[in-house]
Parts: sequence; structure tokens; C-alpha cells
Amino acid sequence: MTLLPIVYACDNFQIQASSESLTPFYVHVPPRPNEPIIGLLRDSILRELENYNESLTSEGLEPIWNIISSDPLRETSSRVAGAFGKNSTKMVGFSSSLSTPESRSEAIKVMCERWHRTAAPFGDLIAGKMWRNELYPIYSHPFVVDASTEAFAMERAATPLFGVVTYGVHLTMYTSDYRIWIPRRAKTKQTFGGMLDNTVAGGIPRGYTAYDSMVKECMEEASLPEHVVTPHIKPAGAVSYFYQTKKGWLQPEVEYVYDLLVPAGQEDSVDFTPKPFDGEAESFDLLPMDVVREKMLAGEFKPNCALVVLDFMVRHGFVTAENEPNLLEILSRMHGSFGYA
Amino acid sequence: MTLLPIVYACDNFQIQASSESLTPFYVHVPPRPNEPIIGLLRDSILRELENYNESLTSEGLEPIWNIISSDPLRETSSRVAGAFGKNSTKMVGFSSSLSTPESRSEAIKVMCERWHRTAAPFGDLIAGKMWRNELYPIYSHPFVVDASTEAFAMERAATPLFGVVTYGVHLTMYTSDYRIWIPRRAKTKQTFGGMLDNTVAGGIPRGYTAYDSMVKECMEEASLPEHVVTPHIKPAGAVSYFYQTKKGWLQPEVEYVYDLLVPAGQEDSVDFTPKPFDGEAESFDLLPMDVVREKMLAGEFKPNCALVVLDFMVRHGFVTAENEPNLLEILSRMHGSFGYA
Repeated sequence: MTLLPIVYACDNFQIQASSESLTPFYVHVPPRPNEPIIGLLRDSILRELENYNESLTSEGLEPIWNIISSDPLRETSSRVAGAFGKNSTKMVGFSSSLSTPESRSEAIKVMCERWHRTAAPFGDLIAGKMWRNELYPIYSHPFVVDASTEAFAMERAATPLFGVVTYGVHLTMYTSDYRIWIPRRAKTKQTFGGMLDNTVAGGIPRGYTAYDSMVKECMEEASLPEHVVTPHIKPAGAVSYFYQTKKGWLQPEVEYVYDLLVPAGQEDSVDFTPKPFDGEAESFDLLPMDVVREKMLAGEFKPNCALVVLDFMVRHGFVTAENEPNLLEILSRMHGSFGYA
Repeated sequence: MTLLPIVYACDNFQIQASSESLTPFYVHVPPRPNEPIIGLLRDSILRELENYNESLTSEGLEPIWNIISSDPLRETSSRVAGAFGKNSTKMVGFSSSLSTPESRSEAIKVMCERWHRTAAPFGDLIAGKMWRNELYPIYSHPFVVDASTEAFAMERAATPLFGVVTYGVHLTMYTSDYRIWIPRRAKTKQTFGGMLDNTVAGGIPRGYTAYDSMVKECMEEASLPEHVVTPHIKPAGAVSYFYQTKKGWLQPEVEYVYDLLVPAGQEDSVDFTPKPFDGEAESFDLLPMDVVREKMLAGEFKPNCALVVLDFMVRHGFVTAENEPNLLEILSRMHGSFGYA
């Protein structure tokens, strides 16, 4: 049985196949030469950005958004015109007066907090307990991730409104006989409560490198202290995919992946036994690979966690050219460029 | 220093950025619903296919190619129209009478052998010693690789004429302190003579699975017998990239990658010491990772071999989010879909 559905459940959006009008979001408009798209705006959020600009103007303040016709774009970039030509007639960037990451971050903060406070619009995304109170960095190129390329930061819960790429870390902790430590998410989590997860996983907040974020999450989610994990944790690449929520919000994601092989003889050691710490995980089980595979196919995993396990299974020789007819499509789609990066 | 140039040297062609007229090649024309492109034809080969059809007709034989206007395609597939709309006005497939893999393979064989014998056209590609006398399978979907999806087979040397995807295997044999066995290609090889290579690498001929092909090449290229390698060889995915030769020929390639960790204590064993066997490799050296990296950046490797080592370096934690700003572009482009698969 092919594992391709695991990929389709995460990489479920393609710009060129979308019938919805999506407006490209840049740092600057018109974009500078080779400046990439950093997000995609649905009509409902585009209207609210226009409304917000008007309300600022009526209060005697400067508008924060620069919303212009997309014609200049079509002339300069056939690639993007091909993607958006039939859909979008506008493009959005920051007002040119917002020329620093700090000023952009502050302007977006004020707007999102207003929406959060009034629970309108987009209350289902950013009102009440959905607000995470956690800043995510947005980069001026979604595939060049570096403190020096940070364009601005924004509240985590608001990122799907702008269709911007967010970044996370996932750890697979396993034994030499390929049993994997799998937690069940707390039923009270904002998203995917009660589903299975990767040993440790989390978003990368502003100010953290991927690796530091991974080490921090090991303690917070699984009670695995830094001195235990750092000698054994191994970076192993990343997956990227374009996820659209059931309500149509766009969440292109990058997850850096890490492996941790429990050292021989330490399989029963308390040091290498993950335990809930901050309440995000409810419990942990050490499951054989074939049981993990069954639960992936049965849909028991949070979708992107199943994808990370699938990447692990490919890298470790469990999913091969011989037993997976769709290996190449799996590899290509789990390393997608979102159609614009 | 970024390793992105290693990727650019292999993935150096993008359909949508090409100014050359490229005609899509299908098994059937008009293509059946969801039937993918299997190759791309430059104008010079398109003309020769037309000439060949005419010469068959003048000999009282059936033409083997069906060459039609691409208008029906534009109506059915906006994705492909987007890629080829401005370039191509035709599409090519086999005559409907060639309805089996065997009949298609035989028809292409007769044509290519005629070109080979007369050293015209395309003598530089398929005349003399360039002819490999080795059949490569072409699949009805380039990303669904299975004996049951084989559309036809053709002489290896002719594949760039049709821009069809070819498949290979690459092995990285390494020690636990991450020294890698690197061969130098024989100066007499048809391609990339004298350059550095992966421990073992080769194309997958018709009738072989990727794994069986890998095991066979271990003996042929490195004198590593089956009973030595099979307990230790580990599949680890694949890379895919769209390569264009200096003369403009298109060679989209898939390379299945394998790792072989020399067992502890066997580093000096004759069993795990690769040696030239069939003359394709001239010599082997066990090089530390940092030396390998220097030689990659210095351009001493055959380009796609450097790419496979780069994939190895990502999977084994040497190239990370922290030391490689372009990690995400590297991962995405080394798992490309060719723009049509």
C-alpha cells in the first residue's frame, strides 16, 4: 500500500490549480528585482487590509499597506503572471515608510491585536485561546532563513491570514531496533488535540535558531534535558509542503528534521525516557516501526508529523524504490517550493 | 560558503525559463486524461522524426510517430499550456499501431540504429564509441517507476535526444569517522573522464530493480562482492534534477541513493576496500569529509556525484540550517519534479 496519501494530507494546495483569487504579498511593492513573494492573501483578508488602511486614514494616521495594481508585476515576471494571471489584479506590500523589521512588526502587531481584542474579523483564527502570544519571524525570502533576512515578526496565530511560511522542528527519537517514541497530544491543544505526534516538535519562535529551538522543545515537551540530548541529536534536513486548512487558510510550512538514536544499553534509562512536562503531550509510547506505519495510514497522526516519520522511513531504508511505487513523488512533494519560493 | 552551486550545476534547466521551442513527447497523442509528458523534443530532433516518418512512407512502410498540433492539449491542460504555450505548436507520440512496449521499443531501435550506423544526424551523441549498447527503460509516468508502467526501452546514448528521464543508483561507502571512499573515473570514460565519482554509481538498465542494479555495480565498479555488501547496504531515498548539457540536450535524471557504513573494525579489511574491476574507476581513496567538501566546491567531482554527496551531508547532519543559508533551496531543487512529472 502506497504512503502517498500521507503527503497529500499535508501538501494539499497548489497555486496554479487554485480557483480562488489570491493576491501576492511582498515586503515591497512593486517588488524589487528578484524579490520573492512572501505570502498569499485571500479576498477576505485583502478587504480587511483595505478597510484597515481606510480606518487609519480616517483617524489621521498613515496607512500601513501599499496595495497596487498587479500590472507592473505581469510585465516583469512571467513566472508569477503564470501563477496568478487569471486570479489576482492587485499586489500588497508594506507602506514605504515602514522600512525596518521593527516598524513593520509593530504596525502588524497593532492591527492583529485590534482584531484579536474585538474577535472580529477572523475570530475563529485569532480570538480567545487561539491567540498564542508567540512571535514568528517572516523572512524576506522564504527559503533563505537567516536573522539578517528577517523582514518582520508576527503573532503565530495570525500567520495563516497572510499565507506566510512558518518554520518548525521535529525530532524522531528511536532505538537501534527501530522502535520510535511517539507521544499523544493533549486533548486540550488548540490544534489536532488527542492525535499522535513526533517525539518532540514545535514552532521556531523569533530569536531562536532551528537547533536551539529543537533543544528547548526537548525539555518543554518531553522532559529531555539539554545535557542528555545534545550529544546525540542529529540534524537530517527538512521537509516543506503547502498546507491548506479545511476553512481554506494557507499555511506553507518548513519543518527541520532531527534524529536521536538512543545509545545502546540506554533503552530503559530514565534519561532517555520522554515524559510530559508542559502538558502539550499526554503520554509517550515506544512503538515498533510497523505499528507506527499502521497508525500513519489509519490517520491517527497529526498530518505533518506523519510526513516527518515518512521522511525518516525513507532516509533509514524502510520506504524504498522496491516497496513504494510513488517514492519519487513523495520525495518531490515533501520538499516543495510552494510554487513561488 | 554555500553549497548551492553544487545543485545549480546539476539542476540547470527550467522549462518555463527556456526560450527554446520544446515539443512535449507523450506515449499517446492526444494524451489520455492525466497522461504525463515523458520527454521534451528540441526542434532538431522533431525535424528528424518528421523526416524519418516521411522516409518510412516513401518506402511503403507505416510511420512510427504521430505528430499533431498542440491545440487539443491547450484546451485540456492549463498547466502544460503554461509551460509550453509560447514555444511549442506540436506534440508527439507513438503511432497508435505501436500499442505495446515491445513494438515501440523495436520501432525506436530501428531508427536509432540507422542514425548510429550512418553517424548522422546526432553523430556526436550516438555514433562510434558513444553508443552504449545498453537498453534503458522509459516509463509511462516518470515518477511511477515499475515494470508494469514501462512504456518502451531505448539505447542509453539516445535518451538525451528525447529528453526522457533516466534512472541511476549511487552508493556512498563511509567509515564511522566519516571518511568516504571516492574513486577517480577512468580518463577513457565516454563522459566526465578523470573526475571524482561516488563510491559506486551507474545507470539502471532494463530488467533491473534499483537495488539489484546497485548490488551489481558494487562488483563491476569496485570489486565489492554481493555477500559483502548486501548485509550493510541501506537505501536512503533519491535525488532528481533537470540537467541540460553544454550542447543543449536535456537529461532529467533520478538517482536512487544508498549508504554503506563500513562495520566497526573492518576499516582496513580487504573485503571493504574498493578496487577497480571493469576499468571504469581508475583508483579509490578514503577521504575525510572536509577534503571531500573542498573537492566538491573546487569542481573536481562529476556534477551529479557531488549532488549525491551533498544529499549525504544533509542526511548525516553535516549541512544544517545553521551552516547553510540555502538549505531549503538545496533540498527542494535536488528533489525536483522537472516541471511536468
